[in-house]
Amino acid sequence: MTEEPVQTDSSLGHHPHSPPLTHNPKEIWKKGGRMFSVLLAINLVLLACTLVSSAAFNQVAVHDYDVFFMLTIVMLICIAWILFYLIVTAKRQNAILYKDSHAGPVWLRGGLVLFAIFTLVMDVFKTGYYSSFYNCLSAIKIIYPIVQAVFVIVQTYFLWISAKDCIHVHLNVTRCGLMLTLTTNLAVWMSAVTDESVHKSHTKFQNTTEGTHRWIMKGNLPINGCSCNSQICQIFQSGYFWLYPFNIEYSLFASAMLYVMWKNVGRLIDHHTHHIHQLKFRLFRKTFFVGIVLGLFILVSGLAVLIVYEVQVNTSGQPDKKNEALIMYYTFNIVCLSLMSLVCIGGSIVYRFDKRDMDHHKNPTRTLDMALLLGAALGQYAISYYSIVAVVASTPRDAVSALNLTYSLLMIAQHTFQNIFIIEGLHRQPPEDDHKIHPHRKDLYGLTFVNINAVSLRVPESSSALPSPLPHGQGAVAIQPSDVVQSIMVPKKVKWRRKFLKEISLFLLLCNIILWIMPAFGARPQFDNVKELNFYGYSMWAAIVDICLPFGIFYRMHAVASLLEVYIMS
Amino acid sequence: MTEEPVQTDSSLGHHPHSPPLTHNPKEIWKKGGRMFSVLLAINLVLLACTLVSSAAFNQVAVHDYDVFFMLTIVMLICIAWILFYLIVTAKRQNAILYKDSHAGPVWLRGGLVLFAIFTLVMDVFKTGYYSSFYNCLSAIKIIYPIVQAVFVIVQTYFLWISAKDCIHVHLNVTRCGLMLTLTTNLAVWMSAVTDESVHKSHTKFQNTTEGTHRWIMKGNLPINGCSCNSQICQIFQSGYFWLYPFNIEYSLFASAMLYVMWKNVGRLIDHHTHHIHQLKFRLFRKTFFVGIVLGLFILVSGLAVLIVYEVQVNTSGQPDKKNEALIMYYTFNIVCLSLMSLVCIGGSIVYRFDKRDMDHHKNPTRTLDMALLLGAALGQYAISYYSIVAVVASTPRDAVSALNLTYSLLMIAQHTFQNIFIIEGLHRQPPEDDHKIHPHRKDLYGLTFVNINAVSLRVPESSSALPSPLPHGQGAVAIQPSDVVQSIMVPKKVKWRRKFLKEISLFLLLCNIILWIMPAFGARPQFDNVKELNFYGYSMWAAIVDICLPFGIFYRMHAVASLLEVYIMS
Repeated sequence: MTEEPVQTDSSLGHHPHSPPLTHNPKEIWKKGGRMFSVLLAINLVLLACTLVSSAAFNQVAVHDYDVFFMLTIVMLICIAWILFYLIVTAKRQNAILYKDSHAGPVWLRGGLVLFAIFTLVMDVFKTGYYSSFYNCLSAIKIIYPIVQAVFVIVQTYFLWISAKDCIHVHLNVTRCGLMLTLTTNLAVWMSAVTDESVHKSHTKFQNTTEGTHRWIMKGNLPINGCSCNSQICQIFQSGYFWLYPFNIEYSLFASAMLYVMWKNVGRLIDHHTHHIHQLKFRLFRKTFFVGIVLGLFILVSGLAVLIVYEVQVNTSGQPDKKNEALIMYYTFNIVCLSLMSLVCIGGSIVYRFDKRDMDHHKNPTRTLDMALLLGAALGQYAISYYSIVAVVASTPRDAVSALNLTYSLLMIAQHTFQNIFIIEGLHRQPPEDDHKIHPHRKDLYGLTFVNINAVSLRVPESSSALPSPLPHGQGAVAIQPSDVVQSIMVPKKVKWRRKFLKEISLFLLLCNIILWIMPAFGARPQFDNVKELNFYGYSMWAAIVDICLPFGIFYRMHAVASLLEVYIMS
Repeated sequence: MTEEPVQTDSSLGHHPHSPPLTHNPKEIWKKGGRMFSVLLAINLVLLACTLVSSAAFNQVAVHDYDVFFMLTIVMLICIAWILFYLIVTAKRQNAILYKDSHAGPVWLRGGLVLFAIFTLVMDVFKTGYYSSFYNCLSAIKIIYPIVQAVFVIVQTYFLWISAKDCIHVHLNVTRCGLMLTLTTNLAVWMSAVTDESVHKSHTKFQNTTEGTHRWIMKGNLPINGCSCNSQICQIFQSGYFWLYPFNIEYSLFASAMLYVMWKNVGRLIDHHTHHIHQLKFRLFRKTFFVGIVLGLFILVSGLAVLIVYEVQVNTSGQPDKKNEALIMYYTFNIVCLSLMSLVCIGGSIVYRFDKRDMDHHKNPTRTLDMALLLGAALGQYAISYYSIVAVVASTPRDAVSALNLTYSLLMIAQHTFQNIFIIEGLHRQPPEDDHKIHPHRKDLYGLTFVNINAVSLRVPESSSALPSPLPHGQGAVAIQPSDVVQSIMVPKKVKWRRKFLKEISLFLLLCNIILWIMPAFGARPQFDNVKELNFYGYSMWAAIVDICLPFGIFYRMHAVASLLEVYIMS
């Protein structure tokens, strides 16, 4: 008889201050398991970073095949783990109790598959290119693209079917496996970015300043007379460099999805807040076509500008033509960025009047989206600030410098306003809520409208929309009836507001696509405009641009995905 | 009669899925205000970063007085805001409803004041140094240290009295002001680190490789014949360079405290979880003096090693002496790091058996502590990985290389284990809980011990400590009585365990102090050991070390503060 109360009390006595403890033992050790996998990832990323950066420099005795060797090994380990996950872990009883409805939306997975296909084509080209001079190279250069192709196929399949999983068995193994795969993708990304930058800087400076800058970076120099002379080899080489942007984006997409999966390991989702939004992608419905038409116009003219710019800058050696091309490029960008900034400000103002509830539920996907947008914007910010300082501090001030300054300032403004707009958009409840309550609300009105006079009688001060023939102050027992009237007037305003937001997000989406295409496919005004190059010196400016620009390009890519989500949600 | 239910329903209808919403309007707009101040901070940090990094390089036309000019202006703005806060904001009614008990503990504020005093001395030296050749310099070089001194005094007073505030008026102004002050501290930190690195690389290479590396970095070169020749000027110069480490730490301490204040703006603290731990600093009580004695021994021998090392490396030009000094330095570090790693592993094992509750309350200070520990460790990780690659890949393998490799590997291991130990320690409930429940528990035992036989009778399977003369299986109605027995046995074990943890944290604390002193006061084996220098080339290796080492030094400093907290809590 005495034991029962003693036990209860003593177990209570352990936590005298504790609020209702919802942490089960699993929850408590989550941090430990997470920390171990994070430490593993940090160490692997740093090792990869060291090797990749060492291999990029000529005077360092680390070669690119050392990097390929490491990458091949970690890829093989990842493939083994993914197969283990698909065959053993996911098949266990109670392995996947919940699915995170926000993780891995269909457009992200679709984009992943698209980029995976281009990456596979790139791997074919790479294998073909290296096979052309098979005898002079170490075997790892041919093995690497083949292993990468297998890795891409296995990983894409894995992410397609498992992106939403909240796994509840083999917690620590799964965490480490996910972090390992994530790290591998980051290492591949670093290697691809470095390889592309080295290649770009070589083609850029091959003719103009031969010899002076050559020593800084390694490249695919002809070794022992095994040069790439046959036409098919040339096609392979230029083909795989054109496909690099897709491989880079593939790695980043996969990393983002793996991170969300890692956050979801062992997660218990509250069924209360777990409402799946079956959002349908209804393109062009409920829009006036203004956003899409204007956006497409900018997209097409941007492509034209890019082609003309590339031709004028790369083929002609005349500085006049180059200057013209730069002026054209900057003018187009300034117009585009100004429009985008204005539209973002307009969108943010519309959100100010939006009475939809803020969505504050836990949502790792959205938190990651925000962090990536803010983090990736730092790349472009940094380039812009360095440009601004260079232009302001150096003396000969011509038209190109003025345009460059405006362009840099607008870049900063546009990134800032766009981030604010996207983050506000992502934090709104989807409009499905309105749809669902409409039938319900109609019933209420049906009930109220029996005595419609009683409503119009009580709302003299708030409504110019409703005709109120009676003089003011008549409703003696008006218990805040403006609420009722507002809910009658809301649909029209909401409709207009939602149309406006849809226009805005479509326009911004198309603009971001062209601003992604331009740097991803070779436009480098940062190097064609000699101002910063002379101010900072080649090596410093190249380091700044080569480190920061990949983040800027990724920002555009990620903004497109986020704007698509904002479009669907508004 | 009909309006009331209509209103209630329609207001409910807006959130059909919503869980109990606890977000008041203030909470909802918190994100907006935060984002704005973060964007402000990002932009200012990037601008400062651009200016500081540009000013560090010789061929760039940005000068250090440009940086000083910018810093002086933002410091003046910060001083104005701090005065506004102290005089207007904090005096308003209901301005400070809550105090965060975790923020700004007394040792952090004490450390801040200590570093502030050294910074003031440094400012005096700096003013004296620049006044020596007053005529050749722009006035900003003398104004800057004076403004900095005022800023340090105002800021230290502000942080001393306001570090715990959770302010509830002027939210946006306060957020922006705090972020501005935080950014200013980071900018001062960047400027100080760069200035120190430039100075170090100058003194290092003044004699040995004159001319070859000189062009890379700017320094305090004599301008127009205004060189520092008088003895007092020399004293001022060397004095202020010796005091730089304290200024660097001051800026980082202030930044950390400002960040916690920023997180606490507008925070509503649940009084339920708001239990202030009146932890007293009882040094040397409940310890066996093993940790402190061993730690002091290592501290003193480390100081001796540092002095001998500095003398041998800097004064003698003989490579033999230099090699000896390096071997001594590495050996000492290897012994120290091995001991620390072992002790950390031991501590983590002890925590495995610790049944104290994990503390999962919201605590911005602790979250920041963890993030800073993990983030700052990246600096040392990066240096170690680059060293490892250099040593493994280069061919002449002598004793120094082997020691360097061991040292780098142990650095990685020690950082990892120490982070795990500290983070586990910070997540425990303080032992006060045990004290408070003891009287309560004693009552329970008093009640139980009336029939002491009944207890010992029912615990045959779990206790070897309690004598149980009766054969097994006698207690027929034993309803899990092991709980009761364990709570009788706990105090002894807990006492032993806590003593052990106290020893460990004191030992680690002292070791971290010596590992902070060594690099902070000039030991640079990374440059004295020519292996990495030859492997990566001077400019790349200098960039790696100069960017990463300040984080490594900050890590040691921060680990000391965290270990002190672990010591007090265990």
